[in-house]
Amino acid sequence: MKNGRPTLRLKYLGIDTYKEAVIYMRPDCYVCESEGFEAQARVRVSLDHSHTIIATLNTVASDVLKIGEASLSEYAWKLLGAREGDTIHISHPEPIRSLAYVRGKIHGNKFPSYALLEIMRDIVAGNYSDIHIAAFLTACAGNHLDRDEIRDLTKAMVNVGERFLWPSELVVDKHCVGGLPGNRTTLVIVPIVAAFGLTIPKTSSRAITSSAGTADTMEVLAPVELSFSKMLNVVEEQNGCIAWGGTSTLSPADDIIIRVERVIDLDSEAQLVASILSKKLAAGSNHIVIDIPIGPTSKVRDQKKAIRLRDHLISIGQGLGLTIKVVFTDGAQPIGRGIGPALEARDVLAVLQNQPEAPQDLRDRSLMLAGEILEFSPKVVPGSGFALAKDILVSGKAWKKFQDICEAQGGMREVPVAQYKREYLSRHTGKISAIDNRMIARIAKLAGAPQSKEAGVDLHVHVGAQVEKDQPLLTVHSEARGELDYAFHFISQEDGIFQFESNFK
Amino acid sequence: MKNGRPTLRLKYLGIDTYKEAVIYMRPDCYVCESEGFEAQARVRVSLDHSHTIIATLNTVASDVLKIGEASLSEYAWKLLGAREGDTIHISHPEPIRSLAYVRGKIHGNKFPSYALLEIMRDIVAGNYSDIHIAAFLTACAGNHLDRDEIRDLTKAMVNVGERFLWPSELVVDKHCVGGLPGNRTTLVIVPIVAAFGLTIPKTSSRAITSSAGTADTMEVLAPVELSFSKMLNVVEEQNGCIAWGGTSTLSPADDIIIRVERVIDLDSEAQLVASILSKKLAAGSNHIVIDIPIGPTSKVRDQKKAIRLRDHLISIGQGLGLTIKVVFTDGAQPIGRGIGPALEARDVLAVLQNQPEAPQDLRDRSLMLAGEILEFSPKVVPGSGFALAKDILVSGKAWKKFQDICEAQGGMREVPVAQYKREYLSRHTGKISAIDNRMIARIAKLAGAPQSKEAGVDLHVHVGAQVEKDQPLLTVHSEARGELDYAFHFISQEDGIFQFESNFK
Repeated sequence: MKNGRPTLRLKYLGIDTYKEAVIYMRPDCYVCESEGFEAQARVRVSLDHSHTIIATLNTVASDVLKIGEASLSEYAWKLLGAREGDTIHISHPEPIRSLAYVRGKIHGNKFPSYALLEIMRDIVAGNYSDIHIAAFLTACAGNHLDRDEIRDLTKAMVNVGERFLWPSELVVDKHCVGGLPGNRTTLVIVPIVAAFGLTIPKTSSRAITSSAGTADTMEVLAPVELSFSKMLNVVEEQNGCIAWGGTSTLSPADDIIIRVERVIDLDSEAQLVASILSKKLAAGSNHIVIDIPIGPTSKVRDQKKAIRLRDHLISIGQGLGLTIKVVFTDGAQPIGRGIGPALEARDVLAVLQNQPEAPQDLRDRSLMLAGEILEFSPKVVPGSGFALAKDILVSGKAWKKFQDICEAQGGMREVPVAQYKREYLSRHTGKISAIDNRMIARIAKLAGAPQSKEAGVDLHVHVGAQVEKDQPLLTVHSEARGELDYAFHFISQEDGIFQFESNFK
Repeated sequence: MKNGRPTLRLKYLGIDTYKEAVIYMRPDCYVCESEGFEAQARVRVSLDHSHTIIATLNTVASDVLKIGEASLSEYAWKLLGAREGDTIHISHPEPIRSLAYVRGKIHGNKFPSYALLEIMRDIVAGNYSDIHIAAFLTACAGNHLDRDEIRDLTKAMVNVGERFLWPSELVVDKHCVGGLPGNRTTLVIVPIVAAFGLTIPKTSSRAITSSAGTADTMEVLAPVELSFSKMLNVVEEQNGCIAWGGTSTLSPADDIIIRVERVIDLDSEAQLVASILSKKLAAGSNHIVIDIPIGPTSKVRDQKKAIRLRDHLISIGQGLGLTIKVVFTDGAQPIGRGIGPALEARDVLAVLQNQPEAPQDLRDRSLMLAGEILEFSPKVVPGSGFALAKDILVSGKAWKKFQDICEAQGGMREVPVAQYKREYLSRHTGKISAIDNRMIARIAKLAGAPQSKEAGVDLHVHVGAQVEKDQPLLTVHSEARGELDYAFHFISQEDGIFQFESNFK
């Protein structure tokens, strides 16, 4: 007790609830008893006058906590800036005013222009529990946001984070809507575009549900956790970078929202558009090429959805001062050969180094997208982008630029090789008609990717290949024999990873 | 590892997350690493072939858990039926099929007739995380359920729980929509109605956010945690009971849903109707009086809302074979004098024992509602219910019946008295124009109610009373001096607990 306010001493327990702030207190502690707090109550936790968060209460009825002690989830430690032994104050939180807008949306009202900013502020401050965020997302989903609201949401997501400003007028970027394992075009595109002289401050994500994100693959080759000022330096020096988007505080609301969205498995177009555009606006880009792979096992499954998404991106982008070019690509199968950080990095290096065995699909896709970006430059004649990109790659300038970027980000690294490998042989003779992107990613994850950089899948065939029985279809790479077993246990149970043309099946 | 399936040994940590199933695992345990599980993943936890739950993963990066150990939240222990030292298996869960209906509702579709049953089954089985439940509630709120859907929801909530069947054709019940401290009419009504000979199997709730629920108050006088079969016996023997609704498994989905609804502070009429009616259907009642107190600080704040709620209750109830009578009552101020379990029990006994100092408002309200219920009987002439109820009370038959019910439920108890008391004196002279229900409840909670049965507030005045400066307005009762201080700290900061007519203020 201090000035009549209840206090507790913080103990570290190391509980990770992802991005939910949780406070752990004994149910018999005097704060719980006197304030009538019970499990799942939302409480106000203050470290000192300047640091205050709202957290969800979980009670702990064992000696893990002593009387007078409390603990926090990892996210709450970080939000509060607290350390073990610190004294905290607990009180009843103020009602969250911005929830009134969420309730208004549930009843079919349009968000007033400032509402989404207030909601994003509360989300970033940790005032919303997962339950509140889920309610917000659900209220917005089902096309309940019009274009004005999506634009306001995008702006709000940018405004609650930091933002880069670049001296050049033309700042380019690319984005892929995702779902294709091995699709690491970014690592080829950025050095081509930067070598040409355009500014391309690329931030990428780590794997969320996939076997590797672009940031995971890049991290095999160079550090990606760049601070805001470090990223600024790299781009000023090299025209481009490939950094993890999570270290800088660009559009921090997005990370929190995506996590809850994933749990509900909500396919919210509004949220997808705001997520993409807010990250680009925060990175300071103004001319963006967006790659939408279409395929039955990729994120966007049909042309109709792709067209609506494109129209939204272009029109809402325009309202925010962005020039957006959308490219539809084939999303039928994984790109390149390697699936998993190190194996993908190996493919990327083969392309950059112009090795004859480099995967053609990764190379062609990268050159096409790089060409589209280059054509944003007034110096590039429309239609000549692809050839120009190819020249920069073939000349070795892209490879030189990639090495420079890696050095600027903290030093280039060797690609590690996995200790265990095992081939999976075809059970049939025939022509391959489809490869399931999700199952391939699943195998790579079971093998240990992306936590284990070396782990993953090396695909030996693509759609259209004629294979013989017992011919290797893929090799699983792993750092532990157990993980290899896991992956093969899964493969042995699944029939649909590779589809054969029906008469051969 | 067992048959190639990863296993962990359970350790007890006593973490209470309320009704969310959480599994605690080390991030470096081989299950997390090999399966690629990270904090907030949903995982399938199996104890043996018959017991399986879905839980949310929180990782624990401290020695609270050793390698090979895992722990569960209190709710997960209970759902899984596990004990410390048990071996569990962890795997990836199947996708939750019923979420497709929730997504359909988000997009404006009507639930197919079987959808709500599947959703309720998944909720009761623990397959939905809080995030899923929040999405479901949000999708339904804002009047997005029509009467058919509310009826289906009600039926689904009944079907996933147990249900009483009584021999008598006429089974009566009462329900109060809530929000009024001290409103313990149930304890007076049930013995009157049961003494008359009608079957009234009453289940009540404990305090959720209030200073006492009817079950908390009844528990001062007799056990309320009756098993399904015990409740059956008591009602067969005494015509009525006053049991806690949480021990029996009547409408178990309701408890889970209400908890999430409270966090979002969603005022969903559909959910309220389904919640009330499902509990009554599960209890086997078919003739119900519903009391809706209307007042600025009670749950239903205006006449318009009350009328819509009444129409919904009556028409949907009719579709489910229920006869429903709705009574609007004054919700402007607390009922009786005591607020808090023991103080309320004292008021109830004063009424039942026909003591001259018994609170008239509690007595009148109880008689009026009991009269309405008695008029469901074909033996009672319409309009004569109040007088009949009064006869039963005045004759002492209600008091006798109440004692018999208490004995049948496990034995009558003495009302305990608090150790500490302090009076709060009026700062003004004048006529009281309003008393804030929520603040009065808050003071009682700060004093320790309902955890401490003796704690609470004794109100000495009601609206309309003319008071002098320094006249006692209320007395706070408490079991600890610290809690008394808390309550008075709050009182000293609040100006609006008692409103005085403006010219005197």
